[in-house]
Amino acid sequence: MSAFSSLSDFRTLLVDMPGPDQEARVAAEVRNGQLTKPPGALGRLEELAIWYGSWRGTDRPSVGKRQVIVFAGNHGVTAQGVSAFPTEVTVQMVANFQQGGAAVNQLSRVAGAEMSVHALDLETPTADFTQSPAMSEAEVVVALLTGWNAVDADTELLVVGEMGIGNTTSAAAIANALYGGKASDWTGRGTGVDDNVLNIKTRVVAEGVALHASDDGLEILRCLGGRELAAMAGAIAAARAKRIPVILDGFICSAAAACLAKAQDGALDHVVAGHLSEEGAHGKLLDALDKTPLLSLDMRLGEGSGATLAINILLAAVECHSGMLTFAEAGVAAG
Amino acid sequence: MSAFSSLSDFRTLLVDMPGPDQEARVAAEVRNGQLTKPPGALGRLEELAIWYGSWRGTDRPSVGKRQVIVFAGNHGVTAQGVSAFPTEVTVQMVANFQQGGAAVNQLSRVAGAEMSVHALDLETPTADFTQSPAMSEAEVVVALLTGWNAVDADTELLVVGEMGIGNTTSAAAIANALYGGKASDWTGRGTGVDDNVLNIKTRVVAEGVALHASDDGLEILRCLGGRELAAMAGAIAAARAKRIPVILDGFICSAAAACLAKAQDGALDHVVAGHLSEEGAHGKLLDALDKTPLLSLDMRLGEGSGATLAINILLAAVECHSGMLTFAEAGVAAG
Repeated sequence: MSAFSSLSDFRTLLVDMPGPDQEARVAAEVRNGQLTKPPGALGRLEELAIWYGSWRGTDRPSVGKRQVIVFAGNHGVTAQGVSAFPTEVTVQMVANFQQGGAAVNQLSRVAGAEMSVHALDLETPTADFTQSPAMSEAEVVVALLTGWNAVDADTELLVVGEMGIGNTTSAAAIANALYGGKASDWTGRGTGVDDNVLNIKTRVVAEGVALHASDDGLEILRCLGGRELAAMAGAIAAARAKRIPVILDGFICSAAAACLAKAQDGALDHVVAGHLSEEGAHGKLLDALDKTPLLSLDMRLGEGSGATLAINILLAAVECHSGMLTFAEAGVAAG
Repeated sequence: MSAFSSLSDFRTLLVDMPGPDQEARVAAEVRNGQLTKPPGALGRLEELAIWYGSWRGTDRPSVGKRQVIVFAGNHGVTAQGVSAFPTEVTVQMVANFQQGGAAVNQLSRVAGAEMSVHALDLETPTADFTQSPAMSEAEVVVALLTGWNAVDADTELLVVGEMGIGNTTSAAAIANALYGGKASDWTGRGTGVDDNVLNIKTRVVAEGVALHASDDGLEILRCLGGRELAAMAGAIAAARAKRIPVILDGFICSAAAACLAKAQDGALDHVVAGHLSEEGAHGKLLDALDKTPLLSLDMRLGEGSGATLAINILLAAVECHSGMLTFAEAGVAAG
């Protein structure tokens, strides 16, 4: 039996999601104040550990299974000439993920994470959103379910990433439809397109947004998104249902997540931003989501790479919080 | 036999240090251009891996033994009332490091690093630098040697950290003596002192700098530093002699390293900045050293904590560089 079978069902699920454990948060804050360091000296690591504990329901958490899921999809809008790479690269990169040759494979190993890849109907690209909605309701529901079902029950930290030639165009259109402004505010160079292609992308984004204007985050996801974006949204929602914290990747992942935030206030309370991508509009998108990135290393690869790199930051925060001795335990004067 | 027995000997060593392997650098740049990602898409990870390979003499490096060394010292200048914590905390925290209860213990475990602690004559604080030089030449040479000898021959990545009540005052005085400006430009709240203590610190820094003005980085280290700062400088120099890359920690570690840079141009070419500390003047100090930090997480703990947290960033960079497949190997179209 599916967790949901329509966008309406999915929308209802989002409304009824669990929140953090406030008792665990308070207990974690108390513990944090007793650890052998000056108050606040671990900076953002302190808030991260407390936040993580509140979602896991404990004042002394550990991070068990870390899961990295890469979703891949193809985009009909590539017919407009919006990418520096041919569409065939999506399926080629899926094979590369499967044989362990991509960046996210190495980063997952460093993070001690289990990585998997889901290719979503690569032989059937979404429709060109300058002509019609990218997906039918049935198609977007299948993609959401693919993401939802990909999250393992025993996962304790989730990263979702993507591969899909053309998907920065899709993400820019989503961000523009969600937050307004001009198409050029949200359209960037993706994998590294030249000025000519950037102009085409910007025009394509403007056309898509004009055609599919909506106040509904899930409708924007359906009309301007792609299967891998919908799958990321589905996985992030599934994590919320299981109180599994999530680290966001770059521009495309954030755009997918933003559709959930638009559909339901607070839908991303279980989510932190892993990094600031070099893709120009990512900072603006994170501002709209009120998320401060953990890393800023000029990365713009996607695949979940930035978020996977940030796993060890979260892990370090939790290990400090749960592993350090208190002033009393260590016999250190508290100042 | 000691590697050096006077500041003059040590100065001579600094002049004759080895540089990076330019052939390895070029080969690593070529490899980087062939990996399955758009050019530059891994951002700073790409330059990091190439830089690391150039120091290790290979285009396809791995990071073997990571060594974290914490040096502890006591400061006579605490008699002036410059810290929120009593001097006894230095020896108490050394015991905490030894029993595994401090932040840097947890962070070393996450980084897969071997951690050790060297307490330098804690029962004999340095002299109060507002009255006389902090150390005699013999004392600073012993401290430099302690650091030099603490670096294992098989180490492939080094972090040095410190513990020493009063040592942000020492670091501020060093930075002011090296780079000029006003004492208040370089003096911050350290472990969290109030306005009153901050005013005392600033006066103490100004007095020390006025008394010990010099153009000589090693003389500044001797007169205004502390044993743990000299030991960090000695360890960073030893790493250079062995072509072991180093990750800098925060304000105090950076001040110690800056003495080497003042003594010899390029002395920190084998060094990257691990993080930007919340201690106010750290950014200004990193600017003076022309180093861009990898992390910026509002940390201000010392102990090597920020640099140890950054180990996994460097490790991830190297694993991507050396572990990814090339376009040709993976059968991916290169765009």
